[in-house]
Amino acid sequence: MAERMQTDSIEQILRDNLSPEQHDEVRRILFGSGFRKLELPEVISDLAEEGDFELAAYSIDAKAENSRAPNKVRIAVVQNKIQAPTTDPVGQQRDAILERIGKLTHAAAQCGSNVICYQEAFSMPFAFCTREKQPWCEFAESAEDGPSIKFCQNLAKKYNIVILAPILERDEHDVIWNTCVVVSNSGVVLGKTRKNHIPRVGDFNESTYYMESNLGHPVFHTQFGRIAINICYGRHHPLNWLAFALNGADIVFNPSATVDGLSEPIWPIEARCAAVANSYFTAAINRVGTETFPNEFTSGDGRAAHRSFGHFYGSSYVAAPDGSRTEGLSRTRDGVLVAEIDLNLNRQVRDLWGFRMTARLDMYADILQRVSQESGRRVIVDKTLEGKFQ
Amino acid sequence: MAERMQTDSIEQILRDNLSPEQHDEVRRILFGSGFRKLELPEVISDLAEEGDFELAAYSIDAKAENSRAPNKVRIAVVQNKIQAPTTDPVGQQRDAILERIGKLTHAAAQCGSNVICYQEAFSMPFAFCTREKQPWCEFAESAEDGPSIKFCQNLAKKYNIVILAPILERDEHDVIWNTCVVVSNSGVVLGKTRKNHIPRVGDFNESTYYMESNLGHPVFHTQFGRIAINICYGRHHPLNWLAFALNGADIVFNPSATVDGLSEPIWPIEARCAAVANSYFTAAINRVGTETFPNEFTSGDGRAAHRSFGHFYGSSYVAAPDGSRTEGLSRTRDGVLVAEIDLNLNRQVRDLWGFRMTARLDMYADILQRVSQESGRRVIVDKTLEGKFQ
Repeated sequence: MAERMQTDSIEQILRDNLSPEQHDEVRRILFGSGFRKLELPEVISDLAEEGDFELAAYSIDAKAENSRAPNKVRIAVVQNKIQAPTTDPVGQQRDAILERIGKLTHAAAQCGSNVICYQEAFSMPFAFCTREKQPWCEFAESAEDGPSIKFCQNLAKKYNIVILAPILERDEHDVIWNTCVVVSNSGVVLGKTRKNHIPRVGDFNESTYYMESNLGHPVFHTQFGRIAINICYGRHHPLNWLAFALNGADIVFNPSATVDGLSEPIWPIEARCAAVANSYFTAAINRVGTETFPNEFTSGDGRAAHRSFGHFYGSSYVAAPDGSRTEGLSRTRDGVLVAEIDLNLNRQVRDLWGFRMTARLDMYADILQRVSQESGRRVIVDKTLEGKFQ
Repeated sequence: MAERMQTDSIEQILRDNLSPEQHDEVRRILFGSGFRKLELPEVISDLAEEGDFELAAYSIDAKAENSRAPNKVRIAVVQNKIQAPTTDPVGQQRDAILERIGKLTHAAAQCGSNVICYQEAFSMPFAFCTREKQPWCEFAESAEDGPSIKFCQNLAKKYNIVILAPILERDEHDVIWNTCVVVSNSGVVLGKTRKNHIPRVGDFNESTYYMESNLGHPVFHTQFGRIAINICYGRHHPLNWLAFALNGADIVFNPSATVDGLSEPIWPIEARCAAVANSYFTAAINRVGTETFPNEFTSGDGRAAHRSFGHFYGSSYVAAPDGSRTEGLSRTRDGVLVAEIDLNLNRQVRDLWGFRMTARLDMYADILQRVSQESGRRVIVDKTLEGKFQ
């Protein structure tokens, strides 16, 4: 079956077809007006051309304040295809990806990035569509010293960059988790967070492989801001985003894997809405490309068995608390997006909009408590036998 | 000061400049592909031309099911300018608006609408920018039998249509509220809901006039679905949307009043994200036009005193649980948008995406309870005097 021709990006369509005035007006409403594009030195752009990936950089400024200096951080997100056929031995597949990640991280580092986040389960194909445990569970590794983590520790130290490394984790009890490991720019593993909400949608048979996180909503205090990671399907849950805000996050990364025909119309708005609702920055990262597997599988949608997951449409972007967002990376190519952000904007937006001040969390705590208690009632009275027993 | 030329809508810019194929692709990603435009009979289109307002109709279908018949409802939203100068006597200002509302409602009724919602505080100018209590508090009226409500009761009965009438309410203790009254298609007042979150942003000095609702999150069981109303600034609070979902809403209307330069980049996505997160329909309704007041006022943003609120940019739309949304009404003209929706889609999307199933509300109940208790602690120990008293 021939693949559908994939559009590179709707941003490109708008740029190519609208007059500068129309383009400004459409962007003002669709993307907000906070971001501006950064021109990169030729030597850095050349890296992208040689390596056949997209490299885009943006900046968003906050207002100058009397009492605080600017608090600028450069964050980078990476989207990439798998690099070897899924029929290759597990180690070779992983090594090929790590080599690619090394190049992409090098480019991000040359742009002065302080924090970088890779896509969900970055060191493996997204094989959960197959429902096969082998060989895919062989990709699961220790969150302390697995091969992908060791690789990231070296990179982090080399480039003085905090790395958010989403992996498939195998813990000491052989329980598998969907995890993101936070590696400090000193090269040390700071800790980990796990996926809080697991999808049961079409090819996303992830609950076959791992359960919901037992680690809550950790926020990592790094040299470059207070960082949290909301993994993939957790972006559909506003309370998940909120809990990271309550724990003090400045930036929440959303490493994901999602395909067109399923989520694409909501992709551009969910992480962006979360940035607005919580007055922090978000970064939405999706896989890119089409992954094909050795054995055929069905998708729970009536289609005949097949071997391809569908098209991961990339389109990674960064969103600001004022509702601005960068353009998205390509729908079809590997890419690195760098955003220079001023974390002072978070408090400035909180002061302007007052969402935290007006949140009435105590009212909602009571509502959720009531709903949870109602659904958790454990005394069931058989009223069909009323009067027959006490 | 000359007003800036206002764009009619970015949807129009896209239609005018993109090829059909490009337009389809951009719409697929920006608006979802669920909606189709309904052609209206000429006799109805003529009403709009004669009355100088926009009239747009859309349809979204759900899949056929074995066990349930389609559950189609036509909902309508109305955006309109005030009709008389704000220097006119209060009664004349209101009567002029009611006359206009009568015409717009007539058009909606001719399109077969079952439920209609007007904009926030529909029967008055949005005078809260002035901070003056008089004469604006004179617009406040009884939610049982105020002049705007009586007018709506007559309309509701005449057209067999449920009317959601957002007004400024004066209760029996002379307390003012921002309220939406639900008038049954039988002409009876079913009840009311009040604004749960009150802004303190720029010209939105609403907390000068009224407090947060004490009525919770009521859902009204009508002949045409279970309906709730999330008034204006409440759209920024994901928990507010969630509480209506927990109480069983099929459709949540969001009557609003908001101006460009403040909220416009987030307007197209917040009510739409709420439709997705809660697997129900939402309708976002904004005022349109520029309102000018007799006395000058300042906006808390360093600008000199002035008499105009800024441009209410309309752009009202309907969003579906699958992330599809209609195009928006004009940014500059009065308008009526009718959407034929099949409420069966809500459960179909819940089954597909499973957001409710995976919500983990008990975990978030605990988190919110803890946060609320921490901020509500009432025992403060003076540790500077440790050991000096027990």
